[in-house]
Amino acid sequence: MRMRTRLGIATTLAMAVAVAAGCDRNAPGDAATPGAPTQADAAAAARPAEAPVGIAGVPGTAQTAEAADPAEAAAAAGADDALRTTAAAMFGTIPEVVEELRGQPLSADQVELGRMLFFDPRLSSSQLITCNTCHSIGTGGADNVPASIGHGWQRGPRNSPTVFNAVFNAAQFWDGRAADLAEQAKGPVQASVEMNSTPERVVETLESIPQYVERFGTAFPGQANPVSFDNMAFALEAFETTLVTPDSRFDRWVLGDDAALDATERKGLELFVSSGCASCHNGRNFGGQTYFPFGVIERPGADILPEGDKGRFEVTATASDEYVFRAAPLRNVELTAPYFHSGQVWDLEQAVAIMGTAQLGRELDTDESSAIAAFLRTLTGRQPSVEYPILPPSTARTPRPVR
Amino acid sequence: MRMRTRLGIATTLAMAVAVAAGCDRNAPGDAATPGAPTQADAAAAARPAEAPVGIAGVPGTAQTAEAADPAEAAAAAGADDALRTTAAAMFGTIPEVVEELRGQPLSADQVELGRMLFFDPRLSSSQLITCNTCHSIGTGGADNVPASIGHGWQRGPRNSPTVFNAVFNAAQFWDGRAADLAEQAKGPVQASVEMNSTPERVVETLESIPQYVERFGTAFPGQANPVSFDNMAFALEAFETTLVTPDSRFDRWVLGDDAALDATERKGLELFVSSGCASCHNGRNFGGQTYFPFGVIERPGADILPEGDKGRFEVTATASDEYVFRAAPLRNVELTAPYFHSGQVWDLEQAVAIMGTAQLGRELDTDESSAIAAFLRTLTGRQPSVEYPILPPSTARTPRPVR
Repeated sequence: MRMRTRLGIATTLAMAVAVAAGCDRNAPGDAATPGAPTQADAAAAARPAEAPVGIAGVPGTAQTAEAADPAEAAAAAGADDALRTTAAAMFGTIPEVVEELRGQPLSADQVELGRMLFFDPRLSSSQLITCNTCHSIGTGGADNVPASIGHGWQRGPRNSPTVFNAVFNAAQFWDGRAADLAEQAKGPVQASVEMNSTPERVVETLESIPQYVERFGTAFPGQANPVSFDNMAFALEAFETTLVTPDSRFDRWVLGDDAALDATERKGLELFVSSGCASCHNGRNFGGQTYFPFGVIERPGADILPEGDKGRFEVTATASDEYVFRAAPLRNVELTAPYFHSGQVWDLEQAVAIMGTAQLGRELDTDESSAIAAFLRTLTGRQPSVEYPILPPSTARTPRPVR
Repeated sequence: MRMRTRLGIATTLAMAVAVAAGCDRNAPGDAATPGAPTQADAAAAARPAEAPVGIAGVPGTAQTAEAADPAEAAAAAGADDALRTTAAAMFGTIPEVVEELRGQPLSADQVELGRMLFFDPRLSSSQLITCNTCHSIGTGGADNVPASIGHGWQRGPRNSPTVFNAVFNAAQFWDGRAADLAEQAKGPVQASVEMNSTPERVVETLESIPQYVERFGTAFPGQANPVSFDNMAFALEAFETTLVTPDSRFDRWVLGDDAALDATERKGLELFVSSGCASCHNGRNFGGQTYFPFGVIERPGADILPEGDKGRFEVTATASDEYVFRAAPLRNVELTAPYFHSGQVWDLEQAVAIMGTAQLGRELDTDESSAIAAFLRTLTGRQPSVEYPILPPSTARTPRPVR
């Protein structure tokens, strides 16, 4: 499928405002279900527009309405205010903490249990692989290899998405097949190419360890069988909800710190919006909200978009969802190379240029892709401070590792 | 080689005092060189003695000299004091911090750099495996599998020894082939079945990352080429020197807290000394000081002592070093199953019983092996508090991961 379209800024802003409104509820994960926005929405969002519209023409940014020439406007002090207003509306900032999950206060006991589970290799049958193996706290919440290596040194099919700020995504995985982080957590534990375990084995393992039995009881009070695969997943979600990265330079700039972005970075932000990047990469995560075909305008080569991976089609079995993926969230993107679901591009500037061609039908020149990449590097926030958990020892009843 | 001997307590105490004197210097690693104590020493230490000698007969424990019957002595309040005096002399405690390394104050910059390197998967060619993979902070400084899984899902030849308190060992590895933790650190990084990298690749990687270049410069001031494989190893050693586990129940008891050990645990300690376990497992690490044949009295089966692994013989090429291994340090042993260099025994009581047969020629009954195991579980100290390091991103010059 090829859509010879150009994404209009008016549509962009309408979407962005809707997303921002959703994010502002600070109740992540309830803004969308994984089945909700599909290729049909993406197509609707990608309505033709005559030409890229400058920031000055963005509805709702009244401060710059009088500036006829975007270049002149950018030169003026007022342009920064306009850009800031636009950015605040389209993207928003990452909160210092997320205090609620599914409308309930985040449980400290569940967070603490989830921290242990996140680092516990006994969730994998080899007792070697942890959540942190592929979503490492030290490397932007991902693993910096094209596709993760799992059980038996098998390589998974797609690049590991970052767990940082993932709570703000409308759905999880590249194809959005999990509604939330709890549902997501159950996948890799069971995948034969990842942790290669089973719910039964996980529960048998956790039940064999008295300290875990006690902690599950505390974290899920009043339940008859607190040690369950579902509760493992809820605890992991609770911990992962704490993995947010506030205080990026972009966020500080949005909140009024003029010096937080330099001129090139501000130019990059302006281009990010005016070129149409923000049509898909919007909301406080700069993505992660809905689905788009990879190759809206021009499909990249098979190295970057392998023919065998049809993306969201594998979830919906809808022809129009072939090669449709969730718009990648771009927070901390400088830490999460290599890029795309195929993990085949290491250079951020190159990734930006490919997006320009494939999604926008626009050959960004070197200055432009460099400026956009420079801007994207301002999305690196304060990385989570996580103490390595001390795990309770196995017992005679704990299943032994399998090779 | 079979030595039908019984280890005498007099010899034990003489050795223990020597070791304790070494440990008390608080300057780990300089007490011995890896080539120093060999099979010859082990044989000398394992001189025949007529029968196990009770605590009451241990020279230097004058408080109990008047108690003719060890059982009676144990019942008396004074016996605990005697046991404590013996334990303090034979073993000692783990300090809260180690402040010196090689006679120099421990460098905070090196420790911090080492913490990053310890968790950096880019020391492995796959960029998947870290020091922490096999020596995990969360699981007693080891990995709880029979033998570690490394590059390409290959299994290493021996069980991963704990990194905790390893700074107190006279030498590193099961065969003592590394004099210290810096020398040790270079091994797994290069081993094809472990991290599968090379010094050149490591240096190229670190030099490609500006934050690492800066940190090496700060941590090793005044050096012309601070980013080196040697300095990587020194930084890892510095970090690992902080991985000590003070404040175990045993330590608290030695320092005067009577309630820290119960009667069974004290009985286990007494048996640990009187049966001869402490002949090899002495010093503040309860081992790690010198080498002994596995099977002093009776060689275990090939499942536990595989014929192909001749231990220290592979280091010294001396016939008498066949099947000779470093006495395993027993701190935190309840966290580091499975046991022995082959990692084939999961149950601590069983491991104790095997040691009784193989090393002491004594069939410990269930009560005895249970009491010794109960005592050994009191050696679990306060586990290290380690914040997961945030690692600097790779650059275009960083070598890519290889599968």
